[in-house]
Amino acid sequence: MSATPPRHAYNFCAGPATLPRPVATRIREEFLAHAEDGASVVEISHKGPRFAGILETVETLFRRLCALPENHHLFFMHGGARMQCSAVPLNLIGRSTTRTAGYVETGLFAQQASREGARYGTAKTVASSVATAFDRIPSVRERDCPQDAAFIHLTSNNTVYGTRWNTFPRDLPAPLVADATSDILSRSIDHTQFGVVYAGFQKNLGPSSMALVTVRDDLIGQALPRTPRLLDYAVQAETRSLDNTPNTFAVFVLSLVLEWIRDQGGLASVERSNEAKAGLLYGELDRSSFYRPTAHPEHRSITNIVFRLADDSLTGEFVALAESEGLFGLAGHRTVGGVRASVYNGMPEDGVRALAGFLREFERLRG
Amino acid sequence: MSATPPRHAYNFCAGPATLPRPVATRIREEFLAHAEDGASVVEISHKGPRFAGILETVETLFRRLCALPENHHLFFMHGGARMQCSAVPLNLIGRSTTRTAGYVETGLFAQQASREGARYGTAKTVASSVATAFDRIPSVRERDCPQDAAFIHLTSNNTVYGTRWNTFPRDLPAPLVADATSDILSRSIDHTQFGVVYAGFQKNLGPSSMALVTVRDDLIGQALPRTPRLLDYAVQAETRSLDNTPNTFAVFVLSLVLEWIRDQGGLASVERSNEAKAGLLYGELDRSSFYRPTAHPEHRSITNIVFRLADDSLTGEFVALAESEGLFGLAGHRTVGGVRASVYNGMPEDGVRALAGFLREFERLRG
Repeated sequence: MSATPPRHAYNFCAGPATLPRPVATRIREEFLAHAEDGASVVEISHKGPRFAGILETVETLFRRLCALPENHHLFFMHGGARMQCSAVPLNLIGRSTTRTAGYVETGLFAQQASREGARYGTAKTVASSVATAFDRIPSVRERDCPQDAAFIHLTSNNTVYGTRWNTFPRDLPAPLVADATSDILSRSIDHTQFGVVYAGFQKNLGPSSMALVTVRDDLIGQALPRTPRLLDYAVQAETRSLDNTPNTFAVFVLSLVLEWIRDQGGLASVERSNEAKAGLLYGELDRSSFYRPTAHPEHRSITNIVFRLADDSLTGEFVALAESEGLFGLAGHRTVGGVRASVYNGMPEDGVRALAGFLREFERLRG
Repeated sequence: MSATPPRHAYNFCAGPATLPRPVATRIREEFLAHAEDGASVVEISHKGPRFAGILETVETLFRRLCALPENHHLFFMHGGARMQCSAVPLNLIGRSTTRTAGYVETGLFAQQASREGARYGTAKTVASSVATAFDRIPSVRERDCPQDAAFIHLTSNNTVYGTRWNTFPRDLPAPLVADATSDILSRSIDHTQFGVVYAGFQKNLGPSSMALVTVRDDLIGQALPRTPRLLDYAVQAETRSLDNTPNTFAVFVLSLVLEWIRDQGGLASVERSNEAKAGLLYGELDRSSFYRPTAHPEHRSITNIVFRLADDSLTGEFVALAESEGLFGLAGHRTVGGVRASVYNGMPEDGVRALAGFLREFERLRG
């Protein structure tokens, strides 16, 4: 390991995450690219033609890239995924006469969603992997779901524990709701399986504090009476996410991200690239017992690669030495420790190869 | 009026509004100014040292520039001012045994706040200027305020009608809450007069979809049981606005805006400049009867200069010709028509002089 400064810098932070470099460059070039009105994208009316064009690009491209069914609305809502933890029960739990919903417990953010759901009714845990330290995705059996559940909530990828759902449960007695914050646009999912899919922006979509939300149209219009206006899906549908000023900068960045995905050949190409990136890292980790990936092999995330060193006392040195090599943000979540490499769409293959090389080198030094 | 393209472009849009040019330039220069970790400001953890430094700058400078009392908290919350229309009653209306609050009706956004308040209890109109088409600020008499009101809500500047409060009511039976979206940081206000002040970002603070909220500490911790977690002031206080990922880009831009205000000599200097800019325009408008400012002279806004042409049929030509001269966004709000020049902090004096010249020129042509 040399003492000279690294030639590169790769950011493996779990989020807010690395944007694709071409997108970051376009932000700089186009943010202040004075249009005839002299205004940057954050200085124009959200009701004017320029922003309408950006929204149109985003809606058209997202629907096409994700094959979003026509009867699913697409909303941009304030507050990230966390605000949807409130919005989902506010909008849906009234569908259940007993105000009951089912939650699958697969980690920290799944628990937070459930706790927020409990504020509005009964949030029943229908399956959990807490007993195995969230190292896997539990099976959801129909008989464990309340028959009058308003919805069943799951987290499609778990950033802290590095697990993901490969296939989603079918034939449940209520619509599936997915928090897809950390894997949206990283892989194709079949939206017809879901009633609601929501995702905070700050991993694969753009800057933080917005959520992208898709809602099947029959689930709109049943919000509890005291639902804040901006959290009501019916208001979003009626105003097309323009009831007040949306996060115009985030929507602009999303338009660039979607154009980038289109230019990569679409979501299938991006997914193949993500599978290859994750495969390279898991391959290194599985080669010896020096590293210990924590997720069950069948449920491994392709966006958050979580592992420990067999000798835990080396973790601090691993993270610090990686930083000096230009590999940033590798410390595991503060609640679990260890190491986590977050490899979203924006992480180039070069960054993953650099990390793979570092894994080998560190094992050679300390193994 | 020449057919050659204008040499300048000034954006008088009511919001999202013009940023100070030095701020816009710094965004471009610093947004991607690769720090050692190679990440732009939207690609870093909100819990890391770099963003902590930005938050610290913002908190310190805002408190100093606005003389915010120590017992007032400063929050950054998702969703702009509109979300606060829900958050204010959710947090405060439980203080009233009858769940009653008072609202001063001074225009469109004041009405929206009141309608949202009515979702959580009784929203009593304690004063209104609806009878005079919102051309002035009504007096609020103590005897018109419910004795058990949880709060009295007002809108410190009314963008649609171009009015503002010069002095705020005193000796009311409940804490004052102000929506200061369109005049925050445009003038000094005495924060000791208010229980809560909130402001959407997109006029004088930065990019859209966040709100800056100041809350006196005795008003925290009384939220209704079903308050969404992210709208609860107690959660904001406990987590210092970091319960989930905030709008890191908006907070970054606000840090640049506050540094710009500091470098102008502080809020008093900025206020003098704003008074001078507004004075120049009102001077032109008052010179003849060709233009008709709509707000009562004592309640004229210094940020939104609203007027009609004596011959209303010339309005379309006025707006179009102004655009061809590089003066954009002058059409009045769609609900009232006429002309509106929004002159926030970011509008340079050159822009105001250009508009003043255009006012004279148009009158010469069509007067």
